Amino acid sequence: MNPNSELGPVLQALIRRAEQALDRSLPPAEHSPAELHRAMRYAVLGGGKRLRPLLVYAAAHALGEDGPQLDTAACAVELIHAYSLVHDDLPAMDDDALRRGRPTCHIVFGEAMAILAGDALQALAFEILADDLVCRTDPATSMTMLRALGRACGAEGMAGGQALDLAAVGHLLTLAELEHMHACKTGALIRASVQLGALAAGADTATLQALDSYAHAVGLAFQVRDDILDVEGESVVIGKTAGKDAAADKPTFPSIIGLDASRARLVELTDSALAAVAPLGERTELLRELAYYAAHRKY
Amino acid sequence: MNPNSELGPVLQALIRRAEQALDRSLPPAEHSPAELHRAMRYAVLGGGKRLRPLLVYAAAHALGEDGPQLDTAACAVELIHAYSLVHDDLPAMDDDALRRGRPTCHIVFGEAMAILAGDALQALAFEILADDLVCRTDPATSMTMLRALGRACGAEGMAGGQALDLAAVGHLLTLAELEHMHACKTGALIRASVQLGALAAGADTATLQALDSYAHAVGLAFQVRDDILDVEGESVVIGKTAGKDAAADKPTFPSIIGLDASRARLVELTDSALAAVAPLGERTELLRELAYYAAHRKY
Repeated sequence: MNPNSELGPVLQALIRRAEQALDRSLPPAEHSPAELHRAMRYAVLGGGKRLRPLLVYAAAHALGEDGPQLDTAACAVELIHAYSLVHDDLPAMDDDALRRGRPTCHIVFGEAMAILAGDALQALAFEILADDLVCRTDPATSMTMLRALGRACGAEGMAGGQALDLAAVGHLLTLAELEHMHACKTGALIRASVQLGALAAGADTATLQALDSYAHAVGLAFQVRDDILDVEGESVVIGKTAGKDAAADKPTFPSIIGLDASRARLVELTDSALAAVAPLGERTELLRELAYYAAHRKY
Repeated sequence: MNPNSELGPVLQALIRRAEQALDRSLPPAEHSPAELHRAMRYAVLGGGKRLRPLLVYAAAHALGEDGPQLDTAACAVELIHAYSLVHDDLPAMDDDALRRGRPTCHIVFGEAMAILAGDALQALAFEILADDLVCRTDPATSMTMLRALGRACGAEGMAGGQALDLAAVGHLLTLAELEHMHACKTGALIRASVQLGALAAGADTATLQALDSYAHAVGLAFQVRDDILDVEGESVVIGKTAGKDAAADKPTFPSIIGLDASRARLVELTDSALAAVAPLGERTELLRELAYYAAHRKY
């Protein structure tokens, strides 16, 4: 099953654009250290929804910007996302053997190489972003982009969220605690994706704030949908082990507020995302499509 | 045993300065996610030689710069170094239980938290550097610093070197291959440390090149000395498991060219480091002391 078949032609074309840019940004598989390069490429180029690059492009598009300078930011956020999946799947973390319908990176390349591939992907994200921005005209914006990416990845963002996630196993969380965990674990990078796209397009402060509200809602909606799919879905469709979260005794939206209330929360979040971008004018169609996709995807 | 007792008072004072800056740059242990923050602080604040921050300060000092703007670069390279040690010590990597005379991070906090702490430390390094540089007057230099750090950490630098190291276990390497592995694994970050200090001090291209030759030689000398200490030293003095490399069947300078030739290589590298900085004038005393220390340390 093609996860992208749920998206319209413009977003599908942007996925291909992101994947070509990712291919160019990664070190060649035949160059030394070849095994590391192969593991990095395997982790990044094996499909995936490419939600974060799409959010970079869609946010910039809403502000009238579609140029090639978006590709680096799109790659950077996806490299970070790919590294986080490699590390999350490790035996010491979520211990998952299946990802996007394929064996996970450590199953194919071994644990040591998977740890290193993740580490190198994180470094590559910052390197290509700095590399690209060095020739830009607006240095303050460039540094803000790098800082935003660093913050989204760190202890107050993605890594912190994963720590909260690990600590939550077997514990009862409140809805607020669960949403805070997701806001860090996946929300921070999703917000950074939108922010990077907006900054690259020269957004002003008010626009950045509107887009950040959108990103916050879409990020959470994506996660609520993930939890619902974990209950309803089949492994063959969703491309990873279904029922995994429940089996691992992880708190989920359905386990805390029930399936119906989770669906209601999804509607609420989608409404909130759409309301946030309504004042931005006519070019928000991609952002709106992505909000819809986050809440309705079957995969 | 205090590893810093081999250094003179100026470098010892700079170690205290770096450690105070590191303490400030790390998230507070009592803030959520507290366990992650504690693991990060444990990994960074548990002593160590602080060679990389010292190289930042020493390189800048040689160019007449000693100001507080060096602290962020000094912290960034040490955060990267600390993260690399946490990941290298993991069971799937070098599986080491002792580091700087203390249990390693994963022994104290568990594997999952150690992986995350390393990940978050890498992100923090880039974040604080971008954060600090955003208010600088010379943006092109700032971006060059970030790019240099990214490159030093990635697949062509530290992570790549560790991959080469893993691949080398049980294999015969030539001296050139061994030196290339070390040039990536530890040399890249040591060179970046000197480069960041020099860039922060406004170095011109010729000075950057001279300092890079110095850094290359000192980085390699440090590693040759490490291998000699692994043969000669005792665990209680060197603060980690002695004879570990030989037991792990890792290629070392003594195992490839013998102990006498390793000592001769050390002299050669020190001479080369001192020659490289000779043209830089009168303020190279800290760089010279560090070159001597790298080659002669007992710890």
